[in-house]
Amino acid sequence: MALTFWYDFSSSYSYLAAMRIEAVAEKAKVQVVWQPFLLGPIFIDAGYNGSPNLMAPAKAAYMWTDIARRAAHRGHPFKEPTPFPQKSVLAARAALALPARDRPAFSRAAFMRIFAKGENIAEAAVVAAAIAEAGLDPEVVLAAAGKPEVKAALRESVETAKSLGIFGAPTFVTTDEALFWGDDRLEDALAWEKTGSLPAGG
Amino acid sequence: MALTFWYDFSSSYSYLAAMRIEAVAEKAKVQVVWQPFLLGPIFIDAGYNGSPNLMAPAKAAYMWTDIARRAAHRGHPFKEPTPFPQKSVLAARAALALPARDRPAFSRAAFMRIFAKGENIAEAAVVAAAIAEAGLDPEVVLAAAGKPEVKAALRESVETAKSLGIFGAPTFVTTDEALFWGDDRLEDALAWEKTGSLPAGG
Repeated sequence: MALTFWYDFSSSYSYLAAMRIEAVAEKAKVQVVWQPFLLGPIFIDAGYNGSPNLMAPAKAAYMWTDIARRAAHRGHPFKEPTPFPQKSVLAARAALALPARDRPAFSRAAFMRIFAKGENIAEAAVVAAAIAEAGLDPEVVLAAAGKPEVKAALRESVETAKSLGIFGAPTFVTTDEALFWGDDRLEDALAWEKTGSLPAGG
Repeated sequence: MALTFWYDFSSSYSYLAAMRIEAVAEKAKVQVVWQPFLLGPIFIDAGYNGSPNLMAPAKAAYMWTDIARRAAHRGHPFKEPTPFPQKSVLAARAALALPARDRPAFSRAAFMRIFAKGENIAEAAVVAAAIAEAGLDPEVVLAAAGKPEVKAALRESVETAKSLGIFGAPTFVTTDEALFWGDDRLEDALAWEKTGSLPAGG
């Protein structure tokens, strides 16, 4: 059994999910496939003018309050990043250039750079630091991230996301292609993958 | 202790919350204040072109899937209403015309007309049927709903919602004016009202 975790490094709720998904999935005995993609092209296709979370000042203010109190409650650090949103294409390519086993550690390190330290993942130096924190060689991984086949893999990831009906991040997709959108649906997605049903008491 | 439940009759997730809030809040020993308002003027102020849930076909499709599976899981009926969204101003005025003790029963009946029977709450006959189902006199309540002071109360409700930073529905507001947006944040809101913190395990 496996759940695919679709995430964009510039997505604040993807950060919340990235920090807890391995522990929660392990408890549920479900494997996690880490699948980076880009929301930007999907928002453009949908006709959005940027992130829907930022369209209204009240909604953006709520998002940061909600993220901060949930991160604090879980014991995860949080710092509102500047700028926001950020260009996540280089980080997504770096993640896709890695073998599956190295993706979670790099991805968590990259998310921490953005949402715990407030840094800008659009900068190659920040991506390089996250690669090093994952115990990998920044020069090697960044070179791989620039290869045409990795760029093509990211474009294909976006196309696959669209074909699955993904419109936001994080989205959890079960083996039977049921979608669960949002960090707060992680438990639902795991229960669905295991039992084909929502969890008891939900 | 009391939690204010801000809802719009045309909001699908407000339906999910309305059907369970009394049972969940009673278990938590928290009282519920039912506060109808209108999302329309708030969406216009925010510059939205209609409901953000309907902006992209993929997002709208997900919303109905999500609502249907959550309703089914809780044993609540669900039927996708036509049209959607609906003009909820008459129903909101009727709810505000009622004394607080009668609001929950009428509101649940109105939500059921829309999201369990697929009817259009913009029609006075549908509002009248919900009033009757709540054991009240449709003629009396509809006459009260048309009074200038009730219309003014609804406008004031919208202004209060804006001043609290409400941008969607349902929104749960605690005594200390913390906002929790979405049916899936009801447990968080109740825990916050009781303890000033999110629930254990969240």
